[in-house]
Amino acid sequence: MLAIAGDSAAGKTTLATGIADALGQERCVSICVDDYHKYDRIERKSLPFTALHPDCNYIDVMEHHLQSLATGQPILKPVYDHDTGMLTRPEYIKPTEFVIVEGLLPLYTKLARACFDVMIYLNPPEEIRRAWKIERDTKKRGYTAEDVHTELDRREAESAEFIRPQKSNADIVVRFGPIPSRVDPPDTPLSAELMLRPTIRHPDLTGILDATSRRTIHLKLTRDEHGRPVDTLHVHGYAPPEDAHVVKKAIWSSLGVEAELPTTLGMLGDDVRSEPLAITQLLTLYQLLGGPR
Amino acid sequence: MLAIAGDSAAGKTTLATGIADALGQERCVSICVDDYHKYDRIERKSLPFTALHPDCNYIDVMEHHLQSLATGQPILKPVYDHDTGMLTRPEYIKPTEFVIVEGLLPLYTKLARACFDVMIYLNPPEEIRRAWKIERDTKKRGYTAEDVHTELDRREAESAEFIRPQKSNADIVVRFGPIPSRVDPPDTPLSAELMLRPTIRHPDLTGILDATSRRTIHLKLTRDEHGRPVDTLHVHGYAPPEDAHVVKKAIWSSLGVEAELPTTLGMLGDDVRSEPLAITQLLTLYQLLGGPR
Repeated sequence: MLAIAGDSAAGKTTLATGIADALGQERCVSICVDDYHKYDRIERKSLPFTALHPDCNYIDVMEHHLQSLATGQPILKPVYDHDTGMLTRPEYIKPTEFVIVEGLLPLYTKLARACFDVMIYLNPPEEIRRAWKIERDTKKRGYTAEDVHTELDRREAESAEFIRPQKSNADIVVRFGPIPSRVDPPDTPLSAELMLRPTIRHPDLTGILDATSRRTIHLKLTRDEHGRPVDTLHVHGYAPPEDAHVVKKAIWSSLGVEAELPTTLGMLGDDVRSEPLAITQLLTLYQLLGGPR
Repeated sequence: MLAIAGDSAAGKTTLATGIADALGQERCVSICVDDYHKYDRIERKSLPFTALHPDCNYIDVMEHHLQSLATGQPILKPVYDHDTGMLTRPEYIKPTEFVIVEGLLPLYTKLARACFDVMIYLNPPEEIRRAWKIERDTKKRGYTAEDVHTELDRREAESAEFIRPQKSNADIVVRFGPIPSRVDPPDTPLSAELMLRPTIRHPDLTGILDATSRRTIHLKLTRDEHGRPVDTLHVHGYAPPEDAHVVKKAIWSSLGVEAELPTTLGMLGDDVRSEPLAITQLLTLYQLLGGPR
């Protein structure tokens, strides 16, 4: 059971799709826990909180459904239709070998967290997430840029209170964006900063990273915002594919699986590839495909 | 947790409503497990079986939901809209002190049965059930009598295969209708034959029934269709209210509750009362209100 948590338009579906493609869609079932809304779009208009608030969601039922999936039992998952804003006919979900759960609040309660083998939080800088959300919601959901800005402002307090604190419980926190300490030219591909918490066993990258260029991909022992020790892996956007390839190969071969390194890793569209995304996906696959726990 | 199983129009809702009224609606939650349909009305048209078939229902999810309710946990119950024949927005159900579950297949699997404290099966003679179904479906659901006859014929084989066998697992099997061995005048109110299985502890009626007229209400040691010993309580339709009252009082006082005997028992409408129905409801209340187990 893999959780991918994060705010709206943080890149959850892109990450989830790449992982499911690498595992094979037939071995995966993906659900979005934003379907556990208590209210439809019209009912929400008269409420004092947004869809980000736990009180706006059946967190208790979500917990039970995650427990069912974690123990191999089927559920009737509620369905929220993003096009109409209505709650509609539920969907029968039978867990397969891998269950990928994405959404706003999958890591909100202890009981929910206990259902997962790996927990990822996507934490892009707010200005990048805003740009992604405007891009998506204007192109795919029929909103104006102004609509999206207003909605983001309305949600900010609840995002800070309920969504972002989930990152302190994630095993991996991923920040796609410019590396804060650097000033790169504007068309440099996005870098990634991966915080790897010792709550799960990550592949030992110390040897690998000695062998590659420390300038483009490097691992640093540091502390999280609560002072707890973590590893931080920087993958620079300008890292040459050869550098990334060495790291990818090393993680993949440490798994001891026979298959070739999946070619779909890191794909952002039909012909754009992100090496930082590929490495994030590989570190997740390492957990799912039997990295030691 | 009370189960009331039986075929369509067997009287499940009438029995359930009277019990909930007697307990107090605020202490009860009632659900109908026919909502666990896999298919809507249009999809069912192309299927080789009717809504009575277990394959037409998410029995596995029903089982899990019954387990959740039995352990005090809330569910999102699917909803089948009888008016439109569509599967719609699910309903949040939080179990209260008493949970009443009625439907076609609540006793179909062992796991489902294990969730209940009392299991009732309503087993009216087929000609009476047909008459009730025609009455209801033509008046309330907009069908013609011919539609209903055709549907009943179409369902007969599945009713025999899946619905009726549930009666062998019920603690109480209720047959409202004429007592088979008697020929009463045509306007005699319906009698009831209650099969009381020793799978739960019923109130000891032997002393009570000695004190009342054995002609109108009597208890008989007999065997069920599998040869297992059962008590059969006959409540004759022509029993005078005084006879029924003695039995009702005795069951009620054996519970040791302070409240008066509920006046809503046995009501079939605003001003029609059935003594056999009242006694069935009281024997059920005896279990729910703490009869010894």
